[in-house]
Amino acid sequence: MNPHSFFVQQVISALRSVLGSKPVALHEPSFAGNEWLYLKECLDSTYVSSVGKFVDRFELELASFTGAKHAVAVVNGTAALHVSLLLAGVKPGDEVLLPALTFIATANAVAYAQATPHFVDSEERSLGMDARALRDYLSSTTEMRGGHCINRSTGRVIRAIVPMHTFGHPVDIQALLAIAHDFQLQLIEDAAESLGSTVDGRHTGTFGLLGTLSFNGNKTITTGGGGAILTNSDELGARAKHLTTTAKLQHRWNFVHDELGYNYRLPNLNAALGCAQLEQLPSFLDSKRLLFDHYRLAFSAVTGVRLVAEPEGCRSNYWLQTLLLDETLVDQRDALLTATNDVGLMTRPAWKLMHRLPMYSNVPKAPLSMAESLERRLINIPSSSGLVPFVP
Amino acid sequence: MNPHSFFVQQVISALRSVLGSKPVALHEPSFAGNEWLYLKECLDSTYVSSVGKFVDRFELELASFTGAKHAVAVVNGTAALHVSLLLAGVKPGDEVLLPALTFIATANAVAYAQATPHFVDSEERSLGMDARALRDYLSSTTEMRGGHCINRSTGRVIRAIVPMHTFGHPVDIQALLAIAHDFQLQLIEDAAESLGSTVDGRHTGTFGLLGTLSFNGNKTITTGGGGAILTNSDELGARAKHLTTTAKLQHRWNFVHDELGYNYRLPNLNAALGCAQLEQLPSFLDSKRLLFDHYRLAFSAVTGVRLVAEPEGCRSNYWLQTLLLDETLVDQRDALLTATNDVGLMTRPAWKLMHRLPMYSNVPKAPLSMAESLERRLINIPSSSGLVPFVP
Repeated sequence: MNPHSFFVQQVISALRSVLGSKPVALHEPSFAGNEWLYLKECLDSTYVSSVGKFVDRFELELASFTGAKHAVAVVNGTAALHVSLLLAGVKPGDEVLLPALTFIATANAVAYAQATPHFVDSEERSLGMDARALRDYLSSTTEMRGGHCINRSTGRVIRAIVPMHTFGHPVDIQALLAIAHDFQLQLIEDAAESLGSTVDGRHTGTFGLLGTLSFNGNKTITTGGGGAILTNSDELGARAKHLTTTAKLQHRWNFVHDELGYNYRLPNLNAALGCAQLEQLPSFLDSKRLLFDHYRLAFSAVTGVRLVAEPEGCRSNYWLQTLLLDETLVDQRDALLTATNDVGLMTRPAWKLMHRLPMYSNVPKAPLSMAESLERRLINIPSSSGLVPFVP
Repeated sequence: MNPHSFFVQQVISALRSVLGSKPVALHEPSFAGNEWLYLKECLDSTYVSSVGKFVDRFELELASFTGAKHAVAVVNGTAALHVSLLLAGVKPGDEVLLPALTFIATANAVAYAQATPHFVDSEERSLGMDARALRDYLSSTTEMRGGHCINRSTGRVIRAIVPMHTFGHPVDIQALLAIAHDFQLQLIEDAAESLGSTVDGRHTGTFGLLGTLSFNGNKTITTGGGGAILTNSDELGARAKHLTTTAKLQHRWNFVHDELGYNYRLPNLNAALGCAQLEQLPSFLDSKRLLFDHYRLAFSAVTGVRLVAEPEGCRSNYWLQTLLLDETLVDQRDALLTATNDVGLMTRPAWKLMHRLPMYSNVPKAPLSMAESLERRLINIPSSSGLVPFVP
């Protein structure tokens, strides 16, 4: 094994100064609240499945925390995105704008709706969609026809835009809302990573027509697997509930379904875990913010790397802490990933950009130079809440 | 309120003689085993999500119990059907044969695969697909062309057949396998309701190319929400795992997905419940069989109604106990449903037949006279394991 470069040694030292000498996961959940109590209560009730008090309560508490008028709990963030796209009117053959730098779920949900992902670039500041570049791109490559935004190259309708709040850092949502307005696009926020993140005090996922959350095991709070749809529309809230519960009409005993629906309801068992986790969310957020402060101090002395901070005017949940290497050091990225993981400090690069995956290699895309730069330079470092003790 | 007819009074008396005087649900789970222990162990491990020891163990134990070479745990039975259809090669524009008398999931999964359900009739004996009628129907309405079964009316390929083991009673699987062979159809068994049911000692769901299970809250065992894909093919087992875990390639840190996949993995938390439930399955099956014996005795004196028994050569799990009214008494069905539910004895009719639902009203269908008769005559009665104490 080659000795590590000075740069790699410096990064490992900075991580160790915050995390200590034991192995550390990238992100693991903490179950120090009422998890066990609520799971037991759920079992004792025998309501572990698609109905029960915890799933209703989880929805109410999610709505309350985020300020959304309605929250509909589903099996995972992917399902939330899929149904949100359908509710936004995305039709087979449409195109949907989304960042090339995202988790696979954003693109797959578009494919499930039989639409085509159309990838756009990100900005370095928020790691999310670059609104300025997007406006220029749409202005020069699309035309409005019959109230729809038409991709001049493909002739297809661009129906919607799905910005994603990357690693919890809010995207420039106001600029994107203006673009959605000007180009007649439905805006759905992929807030899978940004529970607890706000823009001017308003929760991410509540700006668009619909927003989606995820409670996967690696997220800020977890339900095992789970997600939610947020909306301020009474009609869309009711439709979301209907479509995610197999479109079954309410009746004492009849089984009648009035449209193509989905078996996407979050089980009550998973919601029980979610209720306990949600109670601890404020302290998780405090703890993750404190971890950022510790990392900021530790990395202030390391040349060639920048710790990503929340954009101005925004509050980030700091879901995954992120380092960006200088372009001059990108040839050190793989050595850094190997060295850190080898010593038990879990790190990972960005997702492979969507347009490089075989199933999405032939879809429309804007110039993606910043997404490609971020892909080369980005490393996530250990981010669990509770890594540094927070004392209120 | 009108006084009940003599027939309705007789049925209520028969139910009361078995169930006693307290309110009784149609089917509720029993958590008298290691449920709490395993859930706590799962929480303590912090692995509540898509990886963990319980989900691997649950798969191994399902394979062992059913005799399938591979079992792949997923979020629900609908997801299991969806992926099984894709694995069986069902393509957009294909037709898939399924019973009109089934739960909505069977038909919806076909729609998710962008194929068209093609409904066929059921037989009174098993409540499942009528193999004899199906062979006649296919012989007179299809032709073989290029090794495919072509629907002469629509010109489309009929790619697959999805028999369902209704309320746990095994369908005439050998006759259907012969039809699948002769007409070049892939056979997928919807065994969502038949965990524990066998044909000639072999578990349902293991005869077809693929089989699917459900562990919804109302099933013989539950994981909250959950399901599984069964197969004896190493290749299909590996493909099922890959497609249900977002088609992500294994790597220490890279996120690369090589095809369109699905976020369908059963969370470890739900699998922990499943492992505890599976340990009790043999006793649940004994108890449900004993309940059938009690009902058989109680209903032997009631004229005009028949309790459905397992088909010859088969062992049913007796998931939902089923009464069939004589045709002369079908005008009593709604009064019976109302009267029983009003006194706290939960009963329900068959699902509304699939071809009567708006989204499936214009798809191909065979003559459905028996399914329509069964729909008029069928009532499910309380069926939980543990309603009558089983002493080994």
